[in-house]
Amino acid sequence: MPDTKDIPDKIIQRLPHYYVQLKKLLSDDTEYISSEKLSKIMGYSSSLIRRDLSHFGSFGKKSYGYDINCLYETISKILGFSSNKKMIIIGAGFLGRALANNKSYKERGYELIGLFDKDPAIIGLEFNGLQVMDIEFAPGFIKQNQVEVAALAVPSDEAQKAANLLINSGIKGIWDFTETPISVPDDIILVEQNMNDGLCKLSCRLMQKSNECSEQNE
Amino acid sequence: MPDTKDIPDKIIQRLPHYYVQLKKLLSDDTEYISSEKLSKIMGYSSSLIRRDLSHFGSFGKKSYGYDINCLYETISKILGFSSNKKMIIIGAGFLGRALANNKSYKERGYELIGLFDKDPAIIGLEFNGLQVMDIEFAPGFIKQNQVEVAALAVPSDEAQKAANLLINSGIKGIWDFTETPISVPDDIILVEQNMNDGLCKLSCRLMQKSNECSEQNE
Repeated sequence: MPDTKDIPDKIIQRLPHYYVQLKKLLSDDTEYISSEKLSKIMGYSSSLIRRDLSHFGSFGKKSYGYDINCLYETISKILGFSSNKKMIIIGAGFLGRALANNKSYKERGYELIGLFDKDPAIIGLEFNGLQVMDIEFAPGFIKQNQVEVAALAVPSDEAQKAANLLINSGIKGIWDFTETPISVPDDIILVEQNMNDGLCKLSCRLMQKSNECSEQNE
Repeated sequence: MPDTKDIPDKIIQRLPHYYVQLKKLLSDDTEYISSEKLSKIMGYSSSLIRRDLSHFGSFGKKSYGYDINCLYETISKILGFSSNKKMIIIGAGFLGRALANNKSYKERGYELIGLFDKDPAIIGLEFNGLQVMDIEFAPGFIKQNQVEVAALAVPSDEAQKAANLLINSGIKGIWDFTETPISVPDDIILVEQNMNDGLCKLSCRLMQKSNECSEQNE
């Protein structure tokens, strides 16, 4: 496997899209694919695809194209999908419950093992087989189960406090759904999942369209 | 205002981040900021910031930096935040309810006016002041209220059917939270909000870290 430290962030952001498409191609029993065909399916230019995939080693076979299975396996490994990372969710409001229902964790190398909230009216309820636990027990739970990752789905004004609790308990990565910027030490990995980004993009596209501007240049 | 058709997609994706930071600076009564200072706050390089902002006109003032208020207003307009677009949510499961609770719509130029589901056990319940309506009434509601945008928060296997219903009713843009790729005609704007992207990114970063690789090059 290539050294992941050399893969630029913007390529990493495209990797899940490659992963999804390659998986689909594999389920169709396709063995090889050219960058041109992949370009048509994915909407990226074929030169971008060739540049991206060159980071992961040599998968091309002259006149055949890329070996889909090899590429799929390598990307899965780079994305850490073959590992088994313990994960918890902090905040069992509607968003936390929606996250508890997410079916994609196992396939992506995560095992969801806990759901926490501070609201006594919510503690004890069960969602997707997980009983909501009191957030006071989160530090002990994290240490005992060597939990690596926490999804943060609390109200914005509780975000930093909850993040501090997670960090002090030894969590390594935070998947942050709050709208507030939170501070974490350098050794903690923070990924902000700003749901409103998509809404802004939609807004701008509608604006472009109402201006009767062609989108072909995008 | 600059012609929005000329703004590349990758810049549009960064606009919400500029928007949030500029808003924060304004609330601190800051009037001007240099690209270097903005770079420190946002984590983008100052040359990238200068290149990005040059797309929106001239806001710089020698030895002062950028006029924050002007820049903020322009970016708000480009993002369509000064408009008033009617919006509905299809699917009132946990994710749909979390979306109904989102407090950012008004500020971003959206007015959430409807929440729909097909489940009789959910229809009639109220979330954030919105009573869940039967999805059968969605087409009439969309036409009558000139709804422009719909958030799609239904199970994956119902995604295409729901999208078709929306499109046939005259919706212009779909904010898609399902995991399944859906097909829409060219004149419909589709923005996929893949929640698992962040999880993949987190996974890859953890992998990089466990390989004891420096992330400084990213």
